[in-house]
Amino acid sequence: MDYTARQEQLQDALDDHRLQALVVTHLPNIRYLCGFSGSAGVLLLTRSKSVFFSDARYTEQARAEVGGASVVIGRKSPLVEAGEWLATKGPKIKALGIEPEHLTVAERHHLVKVVGPRVRVRGAPPLVEQARTVKDPSEIERLRAAARLAADLFEVALKTIRPGIKEVEVAAELEYAARQAGAEGMSFETIVASGKRSALPHGRASSALIPAQGFVVCDFGVILAGYCSDMTRTVHLGTPAARARHIYSAVREAQQGAVQAVAPGVMIEKVHAAARKLLSRQKLVQYFQHSTGHGVGLEIHEAPRIAAGQRELLRAGMVITIEPGVYVPDFGGVRIEDMVAVTREGCQIFTPTSKELIEI
Amino acid sequence: MDYTARQEQLQDALDDHRLQALVVTHLPNIRYLCGFSGSAGVLLLTRSKSVFFSDARYTEQARAEVGGASVVIGRKSPLVEAGEWLATKGPKIKALGIEPEHLTVAERHHLVKVVGPRVRVRGAPPLVEQARTVKDPSEIERLRAAARLAADLFEVALKTIRPGIKEVEVAAELEYAARQAGAEGMSFETIVASGKRSALPHGRASSALIPAQGFVVCDFGVILAGYCSDMTRTVHLGTPAARARHIYSAVREAQQGAVQAVAPGVMIEKVHAAARKLLSRQKLVQYFQHSTGHGVGLEIHEAPRIAAGQRELLRAGMVITIEPGVYVPDFGGVRIEDMVAVTREGCQIFTPTSKELIEI
Repeated sequence: MDYTARQEQLQDALDDHRLQALVVTHLPNIRYLCGFSGSAGVLLLTRSKSVFFSDARYTEQARAEVGGASVVIGRKSPLVEAGEWLATKGPKIKALGIEPEHLTVAERHHLVKVVGPRVRVRGAPPLVEQARTVKDPSEIERLRAAARLAADLFEVALKTIRPGIKEVEVAAELEYAARQAGAEGMSFETIVASGKRSALPHGRASSALIPAQGFVVCDFGVILAGYCSDMTRTVHLGTPAARARHIYSAVREAQQGAVQAVAPGVMIEKVHAAARKLLSRQKLVQYFQHSTGHGVGLEIHEAPRIAAGQRELLRAGMVITIEPGVYVPDFGGVRIEDMVAVTREGCQIFTPTSKELIEI
Repeated sequence: MDYTARQEQLQDALDDHRLQALVVTHLPNIRYLCGFSGSAGVLLLTRSKSVFFSDARYTEQARAEVGGASVVIGRKSPLVEAGEWLATKGPKIKALGIEPEHLTVAERHHLVKVVGPRVRVRGAPPLVEQARTVKDPSEIERLRAAARLAADLFEVALKTIRPGIKEVEVAAELEYAARQAGAEGMSFETIVASGKRSALPHGRASSALIPAQGFVVCDFGVILAGYCSDMTRTVHLGTPAARARHIYSAVREAQQGAVQAVAPGVMIEKVHAAARKLLSRQKLVQYFQHSTGHGVGLEIHEAPRIAAGQRELLRAGMVITIEPGVYVPDFGGVRIEDMVAVTREGCQIFTPTSKELIEI
């Protein structure tokens, strides 16, 4: 990862926003910019300097990981250390940018106090989040590996799903296999939602027993070398009735239609519209209430959102999920999700798992 | 859980801080006050009303879980919904309290806009965190159960620890057993730190192989029925040399001395001082740099901190960890940690696991 280039790009952007420095507090942004993967740190960028602040717990780790920035290990909180450094050793500046979505009111208060009344502390636009939407080749490689591992884990889930087993037991087997395969952890709470619970879009694995008949939605992902994956498959226990088959094939069609809409230069809302249009034809769109997908990278949910009203254009290098779903209350639900990369030619699906309806 | 009583206690405290309403945004505080365990919600308390706001994903869950408050499912963000409710349907108020440690600068900005210029938005003291320090009997029961489960899991860890196995494999077995036993998850990233890595206080399980000789620190906990546990034991592979024995017995003595200091009415810093004094006698105190412990409950780290300068008094019903450690760079480290409850009589240890040095 070329941390210096990432930092320079951001430093160059400061002028455009009439900022002379930016204090980065969102940990995934810090990791993206300088490589630090611990849980206490602040990165301060001025026009010409990058300084990373942490505390004594992270002395070794910061020295080993941080690239492109000098490292200061302080005794106070990293944010206060950064503010004090700016006030005493930094360049004279008028405006210091903060990340308003990632700084608490209390933290801002402390920062304002230490930088002094001459420096205006002002919310910066999400510059790092924006930069992070387009992945470089090393990130693409990691995301692909994380997606591949998730696909392997789905095979583990398939072996465990059967009537009478608890949803959490399926999750446990899958998570155990993830750990054994070297994942740092799951990228979010594993969803195993069976029977009527499959109609809950956020039905994390519960102690409910998987019934003999009905859908089971499995939505999960791993963190591998810092990068997240996300996939969903829905299987059916017993022989699906006509209605269940109809819902499944409609969701599959919507998912594939949305994937086909993915290409550089396409307005993001069009991808969402593609999924909705296909579900609309099947008279199921009223059961599809969430967005079609999201960016994925160092965080499981990151920009861009694949949703209505998103008029930004897709760019080559973006990695997003495509995950429409249909949830019929008191009946059940189906969601199918792939991770896909926007490429120069169109798009590439990272999730190698079949989308044929599996009956167990 | 008596949510109404918890809310009323807080409503009664508003006057003392010249607030007419409080908007609670920290999820564990929301769960404590009204029972909601999802990930999007805001609780608004005025002198006479409690209203909980969430979005359509949580309609069912909010209705099932929330106690003592009316539920509003809105289309905008719960915080904006709460602000608009206050502006249009709430009582006329002068000052609205926020949780400055748990509200971002951007969220405060949105809130200020919707409540209008006549309402002063002001940081409130950590009233809910303070209330949460003293656990009621139902919380004590859950914390005890979470601690007991962790102790069972340590037996699983013991069966897997051997030279040549990866640290993450030990973590994987332990986490798998936790899931099978019904834990919602781990309360923090499992630490398995072996050999020289045992000298890292935050040595989360890595792919390092456990060596044939040296300490292995295991620090982990589960979330069970919403409540966290936290325990640490250190074992030794091979026969410990005199120095290792000395360190282990010094830490054990310090840990037991600190536990003995725990009683209602005791100033918190005295518990920390008790551990330090005993390590000082063994000329090891320079290797003990962190605090002695912390409160544990709905969050793994909550008030009070058991550290220098904490002049608050222990109160019956507090549940805290006691976890001194000695970390000798390039040699190894030892930490021993129990969860203990402050009782009327003194204290009760929740972690039933022996502290004898185990050699593997």
